[in-house]
Amino acid sequence: MALPAHEGAASAMTSFTSQYGALMGDLLASVRSAAQRTPISGIISTANHGRQVPGTIPLWAGEGDLPTPRFIAEAAAKALYDGETFYTHSRGIPELREAIAGYYEEQFGRPFDPDTFFVTGSGMQAIQLCVAMTVGAGEDILIPTPSWPNAAGASTVIGANPVIVPMAEDAGRWVLTVEMLEKAMTPQTRAIFVNSPANPTGWTATREEMEAILAFARANELWIIADEIYSRFIWTGASRAPSFLDIAEPDDRILWVGTFSKNWAMTGWRMGWIHAPLALKQTLENLIQYSTSGTAVFMQRAGIAAITEGDWFVRSMIERAREGRDIVAEALAGRNRVTFAPPDGAFYAFFKVDGLESSRQAAIDLIDKAQVGTAPGTAFGENGEGYVRVCFLRSSDSLREAMSRIVNYLETLG
Amino acid sequence: MALPAHEGAASAMTSFTSQYGALMGDLLASVRSAAQRTPISGIISTANHGRQVPGTIPLWAGEGDLPTPRFIAEAAAKALYDGETFYTHSRGIPELREAIAGYYEEQFGRPFDPDTFFVTGSGMQAIQLCVAMTVGAGEDILIPTPSWPNAAGASTVIGANPVIVPMAEDAGRWVLTVEMLEKAMTPQTRAIFVNSPANPTGWTATREEMEAILAFARANELWIIADEIYSRFIWTGASRAPSFLDIAEPDDRILWVGTFSKNWAMTGWRMGWIHAPLALKQTLENLIQYSTSGTAVFMQRAGIAAITEGDWFVRSMIERAREGRDIVAEALAGRNRVTFAPPDGAFYAFFKVDGLESSRQAAIDLIDKAQVGTAPGTAFGENGEGYVRVCFLRSSDSLREAMSRIVNYLETLG
Repeated sequence: MALPAHEGAASAMTSFTSQYGALMGDLLASVRSAAQRTPISGIISTANHGRQVPGTIPLWAGEGDLPTPRFIAEAAAKALYDGETFYTHSRGIPELREAIAGYYEEQFGRPFDPDTFFVTGSGMQAIQLCVAMTVGAGEDILIPTPSWPNAAGASTVIGANPVIVPMAEDAGRWVLTVEMLEKAMTPQTRAIFVNSPANPTGWTATREEMEAILAFARANELWIIADEIYSRFIWTGASRAPSFLDIAEPDDRILWVGTFSKNWAMTGWRMGWIHAPLALKQTLENLIQYSTSGTAVFMQRAGIAAITEGDWFVRSMIERAREGRDIVAEALAGRNRVTFAPPDGAFYAFFKVDGLESSRQAAIDLIDKAQVGTAPGTAFGENGEGYVRVCFLRSSDSLREAMSRIVNYLETLG
Repeated sequence: MALPAHEGAASAMTSFTSQYGALMGDLLASVRSAAQRTPISGIISTANHGRQVPGTIPLWAGEGDLPTPRFIAEAAAKALYDGETFYTHSRGIPELREAIAGYYEEQFGRPFDPDTFFVTGSGMQAIQLCVAMTVGAGEDILIPTPSWPNAAGASTVIGANPVIVPMAEDAGRWVLTVEMLEKAMTPQTRAIFVNSPANPTGWTATREEMEAILAFARANELWIIADEIYSRFIWTGASRAPSFLDIAEPDDRILWVGTFSKNWAMTGWRMGWIHAPLALKQTLENLIQYSTSGTAVFMQRAGIAAITEGDWFVRSMIERAREGRDIVAEALAGRNRVTFAPPDGAFYAFFKVDGLESSRQAAIDLIDKAQVGTAPGTAFGENGEGYVRVCFLRSSDSLREAMSRIVNYLETLG
């Protein structure tokens, strides 16, 4: 089953055609069909609407309300003033790759080779490159949903088929089984996108579940694209979420994506990384060369500052999210029509509203009538209909106000 | 005729396989075949070698020796300190798109709609997105060569076939005719990449040549990807090079790529743009969303400063290149074995050395024996064999020293 264009290219084409006439419609119709099929992100279309409504509290995106800390900005500014504005290594400067390797060593208690890390122009680009490494035109990639839509989007751009694997939900808790993956698999399947802790559901695979997924991937010679960027935002009592790095062997086909965005409040910077087997070094460097050709050195200096001096800040972000999770849980507890279980990981509440016919319309109404920005559940796949996502990485006061507006809006639904 | 992997993936695979054993070779063999086929850039592999040899004067890349001017760096630093570190519009902030539109109005003497401009994470990404808009897996894109290798690289990544159109050369002057394009065309051809003024040859299409290419594209329903980023580096006496913008109609299938890199000494920043028909707005925004999801706001503020306050700097860069062109012409004039005509545009000297059997080996020898970094002609296509490229956007003293080293090396060849 191919992932539908959630809020699709087809309707966008129609509106453009009527707006600019047949001539412009012809022009759009002449672009590559895979580009035309690429869906509009349901998060972006909501945000584009919400940015026009003053006073809206924006909980639609996966980012908090704190700017990047000053010491990180200063590292970038210093490098800029030092003239670090020339071309550099496509896969990142050695110092940053060493800093990332050191960070992994801290997290996983064993050494990592800096040459297995590749700096990218965002975590999104890391996903795009991992897709380009593994899945081609006419081939399939399994994407358990509800899921952040961009992995599917990147697959569509390259001409591949994102195949949804609808996860099961019971009282707000989500489950992914190997049987579900098996059912979705075809002879054209080349990869699985595994996001744990997950955006938007907070689903966090246990070590045993990861072992089962890995065994399935090994048996079927599939690549795993592991998106574990929320691993430190974990609410089970563990210090970090289980990782494929805990169980992988050197010959396993796994690519890990990483980002500076969430831990260090650097969402707007567009800087991430890939961790990949050493054998892929030259191929990945080539793919970076032919996409963005690397990341600004002055940004990479900021990345080094973040990783080597910023752990106190990451801890403060985790604490902020923990408080946010409590505020959301309290606001939604016992509410009429609302089904919600506090998530095991990440910093989103993804809750179901009984009787909600259109998540998309609800997200628009919440902006227009309640001045609070959410992401519609359908932005994350068909089985997100009826759900609303809010990001709770936010100051307590602002989040309490936002949740109060949401709850009041839900009560108007009767 | 498919573009060969100049210094190809095959040999890289062999070396990795022997280095890391059969296990790692299996891993590499299991990645997507189009990713494996992506060639190593002959410029990058030379630069990677040269960076290890102290004292080497680097003329291998398409960048000068001046860092980004202070006022541009300050605009980025100010925005950073102001907290402009959040997610933003995928296609760029309105203020920057307005500034770019204003720049085009100055250059072309008529108004442009800011909504036809799309900010990208480098000129390279602009090319990648234009390829993704127009050419799919199994389809062809015509690329006149010698050509900067990255347009072909981006085509290979998406599974398309870069089809070389070998240009003719006579005494250092290059020619592209419609007959050459017709000869290379197949039923699968969807686009032509036209770089004028050209890297590395300096070839600059006249208005009449552009009209002929456009007529050919119209007749065959091909897209033109117009790379005119060197348009102000023009040595024919004109104030800028002829542009497809001088002759295009609204329904023409043309995408223009742009970059901050060359005019404003911002090569390391990775910031560029696309100018495209308005009808493609949503589709291009989607493609940006699913690749890097946009460009940092603090970088975009620097872009605004560059465009609105930096014309004096662009003029100084043009003057620097003009002086560099004279220095190179003087150094190469009348040299035994050397065929060179000063280029009409851009800031490269691409000269032929009679009897040179391997441009690649010469580039390595020039680094090892003469401490000067050039780009081998074969990095730009098979018909670049026997040629050497140097970038002459450099201080007079440094460039004179570099050219003296090159000339001395050439004399050792006998």
